[in-house]
Amino acid sequence: MNDQKHVFVKMGVSAWETEVSRVSKILESTGDDALSKETAPGRNSGHYLLGHLVAVSDGMLALLGWEERSLKDLDAAFLANSEKAGLPRPNLSTLREQWKTINAKISSHIQKMSADDWFNRHTAVSEADFAKEPHRNKLNLLINRTIHMSYHRGQLIYLTKKAED
Amino acid sequence: MNDQKHVFVKMGVSAWETEVSRVSKILESTGDDALSKETAPGRNSGHYLLGHLVAVSDGMLALLGWEERSLKDLDAAFLANSEKAGLPRPNLSTLREQWKTINAKISSHIQKMSADDWFNRHTAVSEADFAKEPHRNKLNLLINRTIHMSYHRGQLIYLTKKAED
Repeated sequence: MNDQKHVFVKMGVSAWETEVSRVSKILESTGDDALSKETAPGRNSGHYLLGHLVAVSDGMLALLGWEERSLKDLDAAFLANSEKAGLPRPNLSTLREQWKTINAKISSHIQKMSADDWFNRHTAVSEADFAKEPHRNKLNLLINRTIHMSYHRGQLIYLTKKAED
Repeated sequence: MNDQKHVFVKMGVSAWETEVSRVSKILESTGDDALSKETAPGRNSGHYLLGHLVAVSDGMLALLGWEERSLKDLDAAFLANSEKAGLPRPNLSTLREQWKTINAKISSHIQKMSADDWFNRHTAVSEADFAKEPHRNKLNLLINRTIHMSYHRGQLIYLTKKAED
């Protein structure tokens, strides 16, 4: 049974890592000019989506109880407000660096987690709610963030040359 | 520990159900005219993406060992070929019905699964590979299909009126 717990963790962590590497591949093959464009007419640019994903991943540091956030200043431009608000924001080369840094940080925390740690509550759930809904644990948050990233990957792919599905 | 297994199944099933209901909400609020349009210039239409999602979900019936597929004839138009191939395909009202039917079928099979069933291999993994990679079980397939659906939801949302992220 202890093996099974490790299997669960492996499922969640593998899905996360696969998703991050798919987005990284898009970013590497898409120049700044293309990434600055809207993903569809009137919709978010690649620039905004990259900032949004970096901000959300930075937020995981706190939600998973790993360390204090270091990119909170991204929230105004990429989380709290839409792109239309036109707030000042880091340029693409800064965001590309931050994308690599935040993912390396997350990987290193993942490596240090025990299987049991993943089944504890994350900090956005109260103890009372967690008692009623024990599936709202840290691994669940990782899975939900993976699904969120895939949603935006479906949009980022529209900036690439070859039409993919 | 047995509780933990149930918690993990709950995580995967909840994520799937949430994703299906989010896509259903988009379909309900998007008329056939909008759904016939390309999600972005030169990219797949909502019509194609809906057929694609129905075909992939129908494929799960066989992969999870639940029952024989009943919508295999969708594969040519929505899986094996791109939209540009221009193959004949069911109209939107048929696909909308099939979307509801396949999801009801999947829900009913999910309700009948024991926690242990979810940790058995799915039919796309050989016994030898499963021995080496025990995380490639039925629940893992459900999680990966959830991530796949979210990817396309990020594209379908572009057919809705309000600009969302």
